[in-house]
Amino acid sequence: MVTIDLNSDLGEGFGIWRLTDDDALLELVTSANVACGFHAGDPSTMRRVCERAAANGVTVGAQVSYRDLAGFGRRRMDVDPPELRDDVLYQIGALDAFARAAGTAVRYVKPHGALYNTVVHDESQAGAVVEAVAGYEAGLPVLGLPGSQLLRKAAAAGLPTVPEAFADRAYTPEGTLVPRNRPGAVLHDVDQVVARCVEMTTQGTVRAVDGSTVEVGARSICVHGDTPGAVEIARRVRKALEGAGVRLSPFVGAG
Amino acid sequence: MVTIDLNSDLGEGFGIWRLTDDDALLELVTSANVACGFHAGDPSTMRRVCERAAANGVTVGAQVSYRDLAGFGRRRMDVDPPELRDDVLYQIGALDAFARAAGTAVRYVKPHGALYNTVVHDESQAGAVVEAVAGYEAGLPVLGLPGSQLLRKAAAAGLPTVPEAFADRAYTPEGTLVPRNRPGAVLHDVDQVVARCVEMTTQGTVRAVDGSTVEVGARSICVHGDTPGAVEIARRVRKALEGAGVRLSPFVGAG
Amino acid sequence: MVTIDLNSDLGEGFGIWRLTDDDALLELVTSANVACGFHAGDPSTMRRVCERAAANGVTVGAQVSYRDLAGFGRRRMDVDPPELRDDVLYQIGALDAFARAAGTAVRYVKPHGALYNTVVHDESQAGAVVEAVAGYEAGLPVLGLPGSQLLRKAAAAGLPTVPEAFADRAYTPEGTLVPRNRPGAVLHDVDQVVARCVEMTTQGTVRAVDGSTVEVGARSICVHGDTPGAVEIARRVRKALEGAGVRLSPFVGAG
Amino acid sequence: MVTIDLNSDLGEGFGIWRLTDDDALLELVTSANVACGFHAGDPSTMRRVCERAAANGVTVGAQVSYRDLAGFGRRRMDVDPPELRDDVLYQIGALDAFARAAGTAVRYVKPHGALYNTVVHDESQAGAVVEAVAGYEAGLPVLGLPGSQLLRKAAAAGLPTVPEAFADRAYTPEGTLVPRNRPGAVLHDVDQVVARCVEMTTQGTVRAVDGSTVEVGARSICVHGDTPGAVEIARRVRKALEGAGVRLSPFVGAG
Repeated sequence: MVTIDLNSDLGEGFGIWRLTDDDALLELVTSANVACGFHAGDPSTMRRVCERAAANGVTVGAQVSYRDLAGFGRRRMDVDPPELRDDVLYQIGALDAFARAAGTAVRYVKPHGALYNTVVHDESQAGAVVEAVAGYEAGLPVLGLPGSQLLRKAAAAGLPTVPEAFADRAYTPEGTLVPRNRPGAVLHDVDQVVARCVEMTTQGTVRAVDGSTVEVGARSICVHGDTPGAVEIARRVRKALEGAGVRLSPFVGAG
Repeated sequence: MVTIDLNSDLGEGFGIWRLTDDDALLELVTSANVACGFHAGDPSTMRRVCERAAANGVTVGAQVSYRDLAGFGRRRMDVDPPELRDDVLYQIGALDAFARAAGTAVRYVKPHGALYNTVVHDESQAGAVVEAVAGYEAGLPVLGLPGSQLLRKAAAAGLPTVPEAFADRAYTPEGTLVPRNRPGAVLHDVDQVVARCVEMTTQGTVRAVDGSTVEVGARSICVHGDTPGAVEIARRVRKALEGAGVRLSPFVGAG
Repeated sequence: MVTIDLNSDLGEGFGIWRLTDDDALLELVTSANVACGFHAGDPSTMRRVCERAAANGVTVGAQVSYRDLAGFGRRRMDVDPPELRDDVLYQIGALDAFARAAGTAVRYVKPHGALYNTVVHDESQAGAVVEAVAGYEAGLPVLGLPGSQLLRKAAAAGLPTVPEAFADRAYTPEGTLVPRNRPGAVLHDVDQVVARCVEMTTQGTVRAVDGSTVEVGARSICVHGDTPGAVEIARRVRKALEGAGVRLSPFVGAG
Repeated sequence: MVTIDLNSDLGEGFGIWRLTDDDALLELVTSANVACGFHAGDPSTMRRVCERAAANGVTVGAQVSYRDLAGFGRRRMDVDPPELRDDVLYQIGALDAFARAAGTAVRYVKPHGALYNTVVHDESQAGAVVEAVAGYEAGLPVLGLPGSQLLRKAAAAGLPTVPEAFADRAYTPEGTLVPRNRPGAVLHDVDQVVARCVEMTTQGTVRAVDGSTVEVGARSICVHGDTPGAVEIARRVRKALEGAGVRLSPFVGAG
């Protein structure tokens, strides 16, 4: 039986502001990338998401970011690696306090936004993130883009690596993502998104922008939580996967 | 043989800015109240202080604060208790990541600035701090003012409480601190400060502002790190205590 | 012909987050209290709201706050008056840059949230706000609660004062607002809210919680922008006032 | 008679933290680049520096930065040009409030740190800064590196441009600065720094790292305020220039 994890960025509000429908998504996903306060995520939101995740058996991961509330962590920053390492470690520790208070723990780490994109190629920033993760806990998995420097550095450091695919992003024939600023980079047709999730999961492939078929070796699929209709898309993805006989399960246990 | 702990607020810089001479003070004190990022304390400073403290056998405590960098945590804020609890938990978790990376751990919690003063009398804020500490780790000690709501709530929650005295503050005949905005509230005569430390430690008493002698049941003495001459005062206090046959030792082990 | 101003808090997002439907409300109100970055309001939002306000002939006011993004400015802070004065002046200047770039200017100042409530009674904080306003521009009006220290200090400083009433708040027999934490403090019945606006405007009175009729000498009515249904309420209030022959006009010109 | 301006970065503290000896430097320089709150500079510091500058006849300029307190604005950020433009406008407006309250005004704009370096080459960020300056006030001068995109864009927008030289930086044979991360990039020999200032001012040349002589067409010399010995260096530079018959005068009047 095929198994897949569904992950989503959650807890991405701050103070009075909300972005993601955390409660609804925590009924649908199996792994929650919880914002840790640097791009979003106030302490009380972190607590709430951790408690609800624990109650639902959803695994908690730390969604770490550049320190950039005003830009939602979406702007690349030339942070020196030792500072970046410490920024990441700070966020993991802070979230883990809430995860443990909720009876679980931070079970993996995933970079957010511009940091996610930067550590695909930037070795020194990728190394800094990995150093923080390994320094926090030996064996803590890293979730990221297949083929990224992040996953390479993590593997070299002896950390489990979890490659992910994106439900709503176009792929190049080389199996990388079409950059966001290109036309067609983000898919808006829900039927298409759902069908791709099933194909990626059951056959390990996806149709690239040139019509060719490329392999995606993903153990998790990212469904976005911050778009309109996010909940409905996640619901339909989940239902279609279950209908295709796929078992939805976190890649690492929540317990 | 009489034993006393010397604690000091450390790591109170932010980014490029420095306030405390952390390295010098970590040669003199036995417990380090490390700023956790809300009133001061960037992640790299937190790492550095934790590493140096661990190397010197100095115990690491979390110096938790209101979220107020611009005011250095010195302005009372009417934070709702659940939010305050979560703000405190966030800070403890963040610091503990660095303490553990340095081979030690957060061994106690002490509120900073306006929060310190508020939890002397404010039951709900005191309760919020205690809830955070107890929620992080059963048995984690709380350092604070003798007779404060903070220590009362902590004791009621089963947490060890550590009352502290101040080397450079004037006392009322009731054994409380003369408010900072009163003349003579802060002592600047180093000889007097040193003599009081010895008296507080060896006899458990201090001369109040009216000349009477009051009891101070302190297990730790706070020496300030953010004043000019702080290092010199700490050095003289330490030397005088050792000269009086007092053993300087953290109230809880650093290991 | 009776004239009234409708004011609303606008631009209360930050970065990716939104709270108020600025575009819709700028079609309905006559004065916009624009957030200036301390409790909400990033620079690009400030620009957008000022441009739209200018285009619609809506007057721009500075909605100044404590520095508290995490708490949305809703937590009282014991800020020293000189610092508060400078915080307020900073915000006015920042907003005025966008107002002037949009061809208008900051035409009044209104405190937000906890600062609004504090300066009802706190003379020193009220004085600090007034000092900032008068220091920025002689003759700049202050919008606030009738009978507040803020308006008293403003009048004493020679500033025009504009008392406001609240469309959706319960009043005491003394004409003050029922505190938010009391049951019934906020009215949710839209018909009632609308009817009170008409009565406050055309008769200068409102029914208090004990059934008595009290006078409200308001030159502006505040409609909230951050509640669900805010736009619909504002639309109905405006329509009912126009239906009652009231002219809607800013208390000070936008030009 | 040769005339030169001496500029320095001032007001670069935040809250309790200080970096620059503002009072001493305001006795020596003729133009003050005042931090505006994004990399440093709390409102009360901004007021103090503006008041003292006005009293001393020192011209006030806005030292604008990326929004990065934790990194002191020294980390390049990929901010979208419209957001950068609005961030810069916000800072100018905020500082101008204090400058005007002190009886002067913001008379020029100079980018800080990583933004300064980025707008040497990055056309879109340079354009964003220029758009903010021109949008604030037609004819407001821009201070920056000779040959930079910033000054080119400013000139194209009809703004006065003021090229500056650096007292303590090594120059390439092409007349650009040796990057900070190269050995010898920053000069520490005070005699040498002083002699170069005199040569740059009276002969318009400087000795490059390869021993060749290159032209520097600077109307202002930047003396750093945030290094140890900054005040002493500025004092000696000023004295040497005066001794060489140079008149020290702001490039634009403070009045």
